[in-house]
Amino acid sequence: MPVGTLASVKGVPQDILEELGVQILLGNTYHLYLRPGVEQVRKLGGLHRFMAWPRAILTDSGGFQVFSLTDLRKITEEGVTFRSHLDGSSHFFSPESATEAQIGLGADIIMAFDECTEYPADRERMRASMELTLRWAERSKKYFEDHKCDVPWTKKHVAPDASSGVHAKRADANEHDRGYAGEGARATQEPAELCSARQPRAAVSTSSEATQALFGIVQGGMDHQLRRESAERTIAIGFPGYAIGGLSVGEPRALTREIVESTLEHLPAEQPRYLMGVGTPEEIVEYATLGIDMMDCVLPTRAARHGLLFTSEGKISIKQARYAGDAAPLDPNCACRVCQRYSRAYLRHLYASNEVLAQVLNTVHNLSFYLDTMRAVRHSILLGKETGSSCVRSRPKP
Amino acid sequence: MPVGTLASVKGVPQDILEELGVQILLGNTYHLYLRPGVEQVRKLGGLHRFMAWPRAILTDSGGFQVFSLTDLRKITEEGVTFRSHLDGSSHFFSPESATEAQIGLGADIIMAFDECTEYPADRERMRASMELTLRWAERSKKYFEDHKCDVPWTKKHVAPDASSGVHAKRADANEHDRGYAGEGARATQEPAELCSARQPRAAVSTSSEATQALFGIVQGGMDHQLRRESAERTIAIGFPGYAIGGLSVGEPRALTREIVESTLEHLPAEQPRYLMGVGTPEEIVEYATLGIDMMDCVLPTRAARHGLLFTSEGKISIKQARYAGDAAPLDPNCACRVCQRYSRAYLRHLYASNEVLAQVLNTVHNLSFYLDTMRAVRHSILLGKETGSSCVRSRPKP
Repeated sequence: MPVGTLASVKGVPQDILEELGVQILLGNTYHLYLRPGVEQVRKLGGLHRFMAWPRAILTDSGGFQVFSLTDLRKITEEGVTFRSHLDGSSHFFSPESATEAQIGLGADIIMAFDECTEYPADRERMRASMELTLRWAERSKKYFEDHKCDVPWTKKHVAPDASSGVHAKRADANEHDRGYAGEGARATQEPAELCSARQPRAAVSTSSEATQALFGIVQGGMDHQLRRESAERTIAIGFPGYAIGGLSVGEPRALTREIVESTLEHLPAEQPRYLMGVGTPEEIVEYATLGIDMMDCVLPTRAARHGLLFTSEGKISIKQARYAGDAAPLDPNCACRVCQRYSRAYLRHLYASNEVLAQVLNTVHNLSFYLDTMRAVRHSILLGKETGSSCVRSRPKP
Repeated sequence: MPVGTLASVKGVPQDILEELGVQILLGNTYHLYLRPGVEQVRKLGGLHRFMAWPRAILTDSGGFQVFSLTDLRKITEEGVTFRSHLDGSSHFFSPESATEAQIGLGADIIMAFDECTEYPADRERMRASMELTLRWAERSKKYFEDHKCDVPWTKKHVAPDASSGVHAKRADANEHDRGYAGEGARATQEPAELCSARQPRAAVSTSSEATQALFGIVQGGMDHQLRRESAERTIAIGFPGYAIGGLSVGEPRALTREIVESTLEHLPAEQPRYLMGVGTPEEIVEYATLGIDMMDCVLPTRAARHGLLFTSEGKISIKQARYAGDAAPLDPNCACRVCQRYSRAYLRHLYASNEVLAQVLNTVHNLSFYLDTMRAVRHSILLGKETGSSCVRSRPKP
């Protein structure tokens, strides 16, 4: 899942993302809560309509971002008080308010509010943090069950009333993006939960409508026993999908893999299993091979902005002078629009000259490389099933 | 002509420019001379191949840019010594070296090296500056006639030799952008000059090949008599097209129009007449109506980067809070991909959040508006010809 922090994959228009085959984007609740604000997005019909993205969206709970604000936050049983990185203003996220924000944003998949355990941490701290995440998971689920029909989509067919002046103005917009709301939910291909329409003033009656899917998050630090316990007790609470959180927080990669592998054993294979914040092209192949279904990472987009490009022949730092006269495409084995059209020399010139087009083109290529990698993984898994092999063991060639 | 200073229209991929219907781009010789350097572009086959743009390109002579470096340049009969705005290094442009640079860049249309007279200036200064421009025009033309077959395209079919290691690497690139070089020249639909192939080691013999078109520039400050004299004497030197330079340098707009109108009388209508550095949407309609065939301006692209958007209902400053909840398209009468997909609220959010996509989308829309405006002007001119009217008097509705 490419990361579109502020309802935009930095520098890339949505139609290009569609052409690249992006099926689902990740948005960051913490950032969207600060700008443009949840209420603004909700009034405009939710994230799909706001950013004109008809395919699926997942939002994180804001927990990880708040966790990253080490000096700006205070955690209690109730939730987290934090200061905005933009203006220092004080805010509070709880399982209830983070879920409320995610319902207002209206992504297809939303995440329970968790505490991401820091690394390193002793066993006592890991257990306390895991227990807190479990209590927060219960509260997130309860809030979601009580409010899951408040997603902005269910209000789509409600007649304009005095409290929502934007509806009138949106008449034209409805014309050209008809069908956006809810289409994302269907695109996830997960069994969508159904809501009874409870809008008393609904102009058009709808008997039932899909709502969001709330995923639980497994924590437990770097302890196999705690991970198992966290998985089992999160499953006992019951979610349509499960994430493995609290990894990629500074631990060695071998340890990440160990924890992923042992945690996966305790998660139901017939439900989506989402590894948060991972990884390099090699890592996403490795984890998909282990059984992970979903991953998100800023690496392809952030690296692109720093001129670091992933290719079938290895990583390229396009800023290097060696590429100044190189008329070859960035990756001769890549079919993306960047590799089909531009030379390394041109990409190097754009980067060295600080041209915005460098960011646009570099991001398009890196996303293409990641998506191609995942397509190859899926292809290999399908081939493996056909030939009776239960999993993929080696990295497929693109 | 959209401005692509550093071989890029800031933030917009070339395929989107093609879709917008851009027929010709302007590149700035001064900037390209500094980065990536003329020799680098020449070795890579010229600007068309370097930036993967098969349609027409025009380069300015660098004269205006150097003129803008008020504190960093010194003008003599021979040429202009100037300091780079990047690193303060010292450089020298003469009619010969500026023409040489433009031949190396290989645009379809290149410009004589001129002195842009400052405003205000007294008559003596205007005359002296005009006379210098005329002497420089002669020198530019002489250098061009002697070297016009050195354009990088004519070397396209030359076998790789020891002095050009890039040729070997370019074998693959030749495959996928075959036909780029020279296509631009044909796209201008001007009678292209022909070059005999003079490459002694040419692997493939080519009997003749199109080369560039060198345009002359009329100066003469804000004096009608001097403008007339400059036009007549520039025509006497003889060029395939003529530009009106030295305007939009701080004079009142009414004066610009007066000078344009009186200068146009003395330029042949059957050859391209190019007004440099103009202007607003209203101005380009006005000058096209007077008989101007070509214009360039940074306004649509630069304004876009500052959130200033041109619409059929007037200018919009998208940064204003009033658009934060506005679900309407930017311009309800615009068919561009931005207006078809995104709301003002989203564009405002991108701008307010300093997202790079704001620059991309804003630029696409403003270029679309300018190109639509010029298409409407061309349509009106054709209609006028059909109905026997010799020119367009009022601004056509888009």
